[in-house]
Amino acid sequence: MISICNKSVLGTVSEKDIEALKPQALAAAQTLEKGDGAGNDFLGWLHLPSEITAAELDDINATARQLRQECDYVVVIGIGGSYLGAKAVIEALSDNFAAYKQNEGAKVVFAGNNIGEDYLYDLMRLLEGKRFGIVVISKSGTTTEPAIAFRLLKAMLEKQVGKAEASKLIVAITDAKRGALRSLATQEGYKTYVIADNVGGRFSVLTPVGLLPVAIAGFDINALVAGAVEMEKAPADMMVDYAATRNALYQAGKKVEILVNYNPNLHFLAEWWKQLYGESEGKDGKGIFPASVDFTTDLHSMGQWIQDGERTIFETVITVERQRNEVVIPTDNADLDGLNYIAGRRVDEVNKMAELGTRLAHVDGGVPCMLITLPALNEKYLGQLIYFFEKACGMSGYMLGVNPFNQPGVEAYKRNMFALLNKPGYEAQSAELAKRL
Amino acid sequence: MISICNKSVLGTVSEKDIEALKPQALAAAQTLEKGDGAGNDFLGWLHLPSEITAAELDDINATARQLRQECDYVVVIGIGGSYLGAKAVIEALSDNFAAYKQNEGAKVVFAGNNIGEDYLYDLMRLLEGKRFGIVVISKSGTTTEPAIAFRLLKAMLEKQVGKAEASKLIVAITDAKRGALRSLATQEGYKTYVIADNVGGRFSVLTPVGLLPVAIAGFDINALVAGAVEMEKAPADMMVDYAATRNALYQAGKKVEILVNYNPNLHFLAEWWKQLYGESEGKDGKGIFPASVDFTTDLHSMGQWIQDGERTIFETVITVERQRNEVVIPTDNADLDGLNYIAGRRVDEVNKMAELGTRLAHVDGGVPCMLITLPALNEKYLGQLIYFFEKACGMSGYMLGVNPFNQPGVEAYKRNMFALLNKPGYEAQSAELAKRL
Repeated sequence: MISICNKSVLGTVSEKDIEALKPQALAAAQTLEKGDGAGNDFLGWLHLPSEITAAELDDINATARQLRQECDYVVVIGIGGSYLGAKAVIEALSDNFAAYKQNEGAKVVFAGNNIGEDYLYDLMRLLEGKRFGIVVISKSGTTTEPAIAFRLLKAMLEKQVGKAEASKLIVAITDAKRGALRSLATQEGYKTYVIADNVGGRFSVLTPVGLLPVAIAGFDINALVAGAVEMEKAPADMMVDYAATRNALYQAGKKVEILVNYNPNLHFLAEWWKQLYGESEGKDGKGIFPASVDFTTDLHSMGQWIQDGERTIFETVITVERQRNEVVIPTDNADLDGLNYIAGRRVDEVNKMAELGTRLAHVDGGVPCMLITLPALNEKYLGQLIYFFEKACGMSGYMLGVNPFNQPGVEAYKRNMFALLNKPGYEAQSAELAKRL
Repeated sequence: MISICNKSVLGTVSEKDIEALKPQALAAAQTLEKGDGAGNDFLGWLHLPSEITAAELDDINATARQLRQECDYVVVIGIGGSYLGAKAVIEALSDNFAAYKQNEGAKVVFAGNNIGEDYLYDLMRLLEGKRFGIVVISKSGTTTEPAIAFRLLKAMLEKQVGKAEASKLIVAITDAKRGALRSLATQEGYKTYVIADNVGGRFSVLTPVGLLPVAIAGFDINALVAGAVEMEKAPADMMVDYAATRNALYQAGKKVEILVNYNPNLHFLAEWWKQLYGESEGKDGKGIFPASVDFTTDLHSMGQWIQDGERTIFETVITVERQRNEVVIPTDNADLDGLNYIAGRRVDEVNKMAELGTRLAHVDGGVPCMLITLPALNEKYLGQLIYFFEKACGMSGYMLGVNPFNQPGVEAYKRNMFALLNKPGYEAQSAELAKRL
């Protein structure tokens, strides 16, 4: 199992401070179980791993296999939780240079996660004349970013292979009954999967939203779910430690949590985590600011600030014990670079000493550190990590006194955008903004 | 020219607050000019753009052309300032899906910017049997990350093409006279460029450190430098505005600056900026925490926190007026997705309304915003932006009362790492850490 260690925070908060918060953490876990807390209509993720059936996984795997075989590229269209979970898992498990290499199966690329005109242009030039499929993920089918991307790419695919063939290469993940995308899917005969009403976007990676893209990319979703089940069934100790410690640090004035990795594959895991915690806790004028760095890369950029800047931060380090591949540092007779003292050792041994050395230096510099250890970076441990972070997030949000399952602040910019674009129904807001500008 | 607007911060700080700091900003600019402030042995960047000669640019372009023609891949080995500047400019100017496409010239990839064992393994598998070159960037030649990568890739290249041919495919950017890499380059007859003693890593993008990789990637470094010269010669007004405003906001309790873009190409520009400001200002227990988001992507992750979380943040938005390519939203007769109200309009028009709508929403939510406008995302305006940020950084650091040109905190983790790896010369520290652990 993955594990957590919080002993390197004890210069900032005491064991007693953390212990004092553990009853709250356990109570929050109970509230999640009982389903009587704020946002309790969005608790579908809580027992999701153990409720996924073998038949459901088989069906996702079969769809994935077909797209993977028939396509050069599969474009996954989605934004927020309909993008970050799949992206995080795929990047964690992929070859770091996969984009440059010939693959056995389809390559997964993402769209509808921005409104970059050049991005869409560049993507469409890539797909010209290629065999491509689309997985479109949207509960309503009307979210601006994915809707624009889907309208463009659907038209392109239909032009390239005809409407009938295109409908076999498009999979929709959407509401069970309502909405634009459900209607279209029914009309065109797309293969579909359901976004349940009680699972919010940022908790959806273990539903078809995350699982189908991950399977298309060639990874083992059964192992991913099995790992999550292990964490679901385990005692809540790890989540209690994490939720209690970070709330103790926040109460002690540590306003920024930096998620640290020493593995380039984990960059997007941090992006997923930032949505999970930022969107769940950042409300009512409170919440830890979630940031992330990739070390050792960013030791040469953010390292100075972290070591010596305002003492308002703490770190949560994700470490991976065993790497997938072996690279040994060669001996060089001239030894001009002075590296012979580590010749014959694996690159990861150096990385591990950089990590330990950094944790010690940061603690000495007044930055408390938590450490989360993964035995390896594979599907099983990622599944454990995902469920760990999800459950700890629900608990931590309740401890903070917020509803961790809503995101009311996300609507403000959308209303303005629709008004500025003169969307029908927004006439009053349009007039108001016109006056203001 | 690029421009800056700070009127959307005036709900948080007043015009008077900002004006009150402008004399300090101007004094800081004077201190830079006179060269009598802290860190004044690192001011080589200040008049660098106008001092680069046509002959120097020709030489860099000639080297780049040769590597670009002869190689499938050029691996740029460097970390921190020897990585981020080139990466930022190349990503800003590249096709978003360049990695997947057949190029005319060599593709630039990066190494030595981490100690990921899988990363190096995956890279070496990519380069097997390919024509590749190396640009190795290190003042000393002994920095751990690039030294490990270079030792591995040099051995691989020599094995693939022989030592003589390899020495023609390796370029070293290093100290003029001293250090391991200079010695090796002399011995092996590598083409070399000099890292000047008075230009720190994070200010080095307009030296060969940044220019050579950018030229290899196929971009116009003459235009990049010309843009920087324009900003160097312009009055310091823009820098005064930025430096005064962000210090006023910091004094008003805004502890985090979020650099925002609406263009996926600008992700690494923000990473470069984070090093520039984080390493320059984060010391002596102070400094604004530099963070970044890619919108609209991250409106669906960090958007909630920004709208409704702790009111300790401000935003600096980089906007690009004209996109490189045109994509028009098509009409759809069924209009199930309800997008026909924007059919016939360019994707970027929607992006711009998202941007404006978001700025209004964030200001309403208590987040002051500055706005930096680029007429287009090309070499010239990037050159202006780079020099603008560099000079404003020097000024801002002086205003904060720190030495913006050192980075003493970066050494702490290195000392520990060397001690843990039992590097010769670190015996005392090794013994000390062994006792502690």
